[in-house]
Amino acid sequence: MPDTQFFHRSRAFTLSEIAALTGSVIADGFDSDMVVENVSPLDVATWTDLSFLDNVKYKDQFKETKAGACFVHRDMVDIAPEDVALLISPTPYKSYALAAQAFYPQDAFEPQISEHAFIHSDAKIGQGCRIDAGAIIASGAVIGDNGWVEAGAHIDENVTIGARCRIGSNASLSHAVLDDHVRLYPGVRVGQDGFGFAIDPSGYVKVPQLGRVLIGSHVEIGANTTIDRGAGPDTVIGQGTWIDNLVQIGHNVKIGKGCVIVAQVGISGSTVIDDYVVIGGQVGIAGHLHIGSGVRIAAQSGVMKNIPAGQEMMGSPAMPIKDHMRQIIALKRLAKR
Amino acid sequence: MPDTQFFHRSRAFTLSEIAALTGSVIADGFDSDMVVENVSPLDVATWTDLSFLDNVKYKDQFKETKAGACFVHRDMVDIAPEDVALLISPTPYKSYALAAQAFYPQDAFEPQISEHAFIHSDAKIGQGCRIDAGAIIASGAVIGDNGWVEAGAHIDENVTIGARCRIGSNASLSHAVLDDHVRLYPGVRVGQDGFGFAIDPSGYVKVPQLGRVLIGSHVEIGANTTIDRGAGPDTVIGQGTWIDNLVQIGHNVKIGKGCVIVAQVGISGSTVIDDYVVIGGQVGIAGHLHIGSGVRIAAQSGVMKNIPAGQEMMGSPAMPIKDHMRQIIALKRLAKR
Amino acid sequence: MPDTQFFHRSRAFTLSEIAALTGSVIADGFDSDMVVENVSPLDVATWTDLSFLDNVKYKDQFKETKAGACFVHRDMVDIAPEDVALLISPTPYKSYALAAQAFYPQDAFEPQISEHAFIHSDAKIGQGCRIDAGAIIASGAVIGDNGWVEAGAHIDENVTIGARCRIGSNASLSHAVLDDHVRLYPGVRVGQDGFGFAIDPSGYVKVPQLGRVLIGSHVEIGANTTIDRGAGPDTVIGQGTWIDNLVQIGHNVKIGKGCVIVAQVGISGSTVIDDYVVIGGQVGIAGHLHIGSGVRIAAQSGVMKNIPAGQEMMGSPAMPIKDHMRQIIALKRLAKR
Repeated sequence: MPDTQFFHRSRAFTLSEIAALTGSVIADGFDSDMVVENVSPLDVATWTDLSFLDNVKYKDQFKETKAGACFVHRDMVDIAPEDVALLISPTPYKSYALAAQAFYPQDAFEPQISEHAFIHSDAKIGQGCRIDAGAIIASGAVIGDNGWVEAGAHIDENVTIGARCRIGSNASLSHAVLDDHVRLYPGVRVGQDGFGFAIDPSGYVKVPQLGRVLIGSHVEIGANTTIDRGAGPDTVIGQGTWIDNLVQIGHNVKIGKGCVIVAQVGISGSTVIDDYVVIGGQVGIAGHLHIGSGVRIAAQSGVMKNIPAGQEMMGSPAMPIKDHMRQIIALKRLAKR
Repeated sequence: MPDTQFFHRSRAFTLSEIAALTGSVIADGFDSDMVVENVSPLDVATWTDLSFLDNVKYKDQFKETKAGACFVHRDMVDIAPEDVALLISPTPYKSYALAAQAFYPQDAFEPQISEHAFIHSDAKIGQGCRIDAGAIIASGAVIGDNGWVEAGAHIDENVTIGARCRIGSNASLSHAVLDDHVRLYPGVRVGQDGFGFAIDPSGYVKVPQLGRVLIGSHVEIGANTTIDRGAGPDTVIGQGTWIDNLVQIGHNVKIGKGCVIVAQVGISGSTVIDDYVVIGGQVGIAGHLHIGSGVRIAAQSGVMKNIPAGQEMMGSPAMPIKDHMRQIIALKRLAKR
Repeated sequence: MPDTQFFHRSRAFTLSEIAALTGSVIADGFDSDMVVENVSPLDVATWTDLSFLDNVKYKDQFKETKAGACFVHRDMVDIAPEDVALLISPTPYKSYALAAQAFYPQDAFEPQISEHAFIHSDAKIGQGCRIDAGAIIASGAVIGDNGWVEAGAHIDENVTIGARCRIGSNASLSHAVLDDHVRLYPGVRVGQDGFGFAIDPSGYVKVPQLGRVLIGSHVEIGANTTIDRGAGPDTVIGQGTWIDNLVQIGHNVKIGKGCVIVAQVGISGSTVIDDYVVIGGQVGIAGHLHIGSGVRIAAQSGVMKNIPAGQEMMGSPAMPIKDHMRQIIALKRLAKR
């Protein structure tokens, strides 16, 4: 059961309520009026808890779970413990997510402007906002309705933030325009100058960085991630793209819609990434490249060339996964001779 | 000699005091009442300084050092300069560390609550604490005795921190419980939501992250490192584990006791790491894996499978070091044909 | 045209003014009194804008640009659109940089000490400084003339900062001495203890870190980068070196003049890097190494040995580029058999 110090449950639910909220079906023989009090992982759940099995790696935990009810795929019904009320779902993890959102509504907060926030008189704060102590909002900045600026976050001059955005603790944001429902995690740096200089025998000549960062709706940007503003064009993050922690995104990069970018990835300047691209942890992508729609890149790969839409890539230098697997096997054999 | 602007020496010591504090023995012929005034590296030490030789790479500096006294292993005595008083130690670096701690006591501070800190009236601050300007401590947070919260650090609601902890400048801490003697360096992010979502054709569904971060005693967490809270289970860092800068630790990760995790490592969600594991810089570890006790993983490795206890691994994908070395050699030969 | 919300143009310029400022020559047949109003990328420039072609990848944009004037190399003149006034330059990117600096003077600001900054009465603030809200400047710190300390930045005790430095939002700085014209980006951590401990069966023994960080003039350090202070010797960053975002620099590292270190690089403790070294993104360098002057290291390389001056290295483990390319090709062939 989630720690009540940190998480506030809304209420209990019946199985029929849960089924309706989550696109799941109560298995035959279970009582639709049964009440579940909470959500919990398989291995610690008790008879009043709702749990889920999604990854087969946790099959053994499922067999021994004491949970009262459980989301599960039809294929796993046969190995279910007898007493667990089953909620059959084609996507048990998504069903669990929706149930957990019902038990623990996300980002609910009391509107409140802390008297210890530093808000410039020329900043505009929307209706229903929460601005925490130590937050700094500069002249001309606009915070949309129902926004939340956490402690110590710094919103620089003329930054525009849409409705229902949340800016994490001690984050820094400049030269940026955010659509609605954007979430920046603690320590994010958005909008600083990119790494732009012209080489000169007498030293480097700084190239003024005159673009912005444009962030689409429903984007999430993980803790301590850095996104440089454009050099002339803008840096753009498309709608619904999720970026994990400690990612580096260079100036002028354009990322499409619905991409997933795992922790510690680095994307060099002016690269264009189309929609629904998935990039594994610690991948590096060189500058001025084009990565097609739906591309998937395995963790730690190093991308040095354009990638056509739909390809799955791996390795450093990155190549189609099956070529890389063949190289791994060939090298293994060679070393054994 | 350490810069007196930044470091405050306690006092001078005699060789016999030093020997007693550090588990070392004064070599024959040197005066146990000799006084050393300070600690200093071999190449800049003068006749009143105490220095050390640990890494043979610095043997030449040792031969020419002007230090008054020096920790050294028995095996190096023969190459010592004549005038240097030798303190023989089986572990010269450890002996130096203990001596340096005596000259420069760690984390000593005057208790003081800055009038410019923002401390909620429902937060509890222990005895003997130092809370610096700009620190933000939210409702319900507990800071144990003799704690130090540096400037701009943000301790979110109901976070519990044990005794003698130090929370670095501009760090952010939420949904966490810390044991005693924990040190978080500047810019650490602990307790934010993990990267949890269920994929859906209509976009991603956020999975509420309902676990905490539990941190054992004597843990150190390096600058700008990020540790996500659990998704349901907790994220756990075991007692005495040291984590370097810019490390990413995903949700539900469990790390045992006494591990060493070097800079820029990434550990994906739900992976379990047993005790005394050493992980080199920039290593990536996939999710849902089990890394056995005492495993050592070389820098830049990419771990995609479980690793049994005691193994030494290298490469991406990671394999036992000797297999990897064989592959490196085989490939070198192949390319020369 | 740069967004006027974020960027403030100084004035318009004639082509002859621009040519004089940028070391370029107006091509025959164009009017030296022609006025350009602004700078802009090739693909969005209009007839009052000045643009540039530097990377041949953007040749097609050049052919179709609507820009009024354009910096270009002599070799590209033949493919220029008829109506574009050409400014011939041996280094078009550098010329553009200088022009953009004229249109948008860098880091110009009104001196102003915010009443919401926390400045210790024993700190010294130079003439013409700007100190933003939420900045924290501790006892004994010195900020040189015309310095800028952004919101939430923390300058710890006795840190000395030269003239015309800019310390980014929410950065942390301790145990450091900065020369003039240094720029730290948001979230930089400079001067925290390095990762120093002696291993002991009973746990780790902390080694007091008694050195500083010394930063030369005209150094730039990217967002969320971490630089540990020395353990006894100092950590040193040489004049004119540029460091990108999310880089890790260990204790005692010495970096020479004019180096370029791309994002997410990690440099382990006590390594010495000579002048004008270029290090690609995500490179890892082991500790106690020596990297000679002018070395170039390709992205994602792993350096485990000293590198003589002038070498170009690639791979993990790093080797001369041509050896690495040969291995890539040999492995490709082997896998195809």
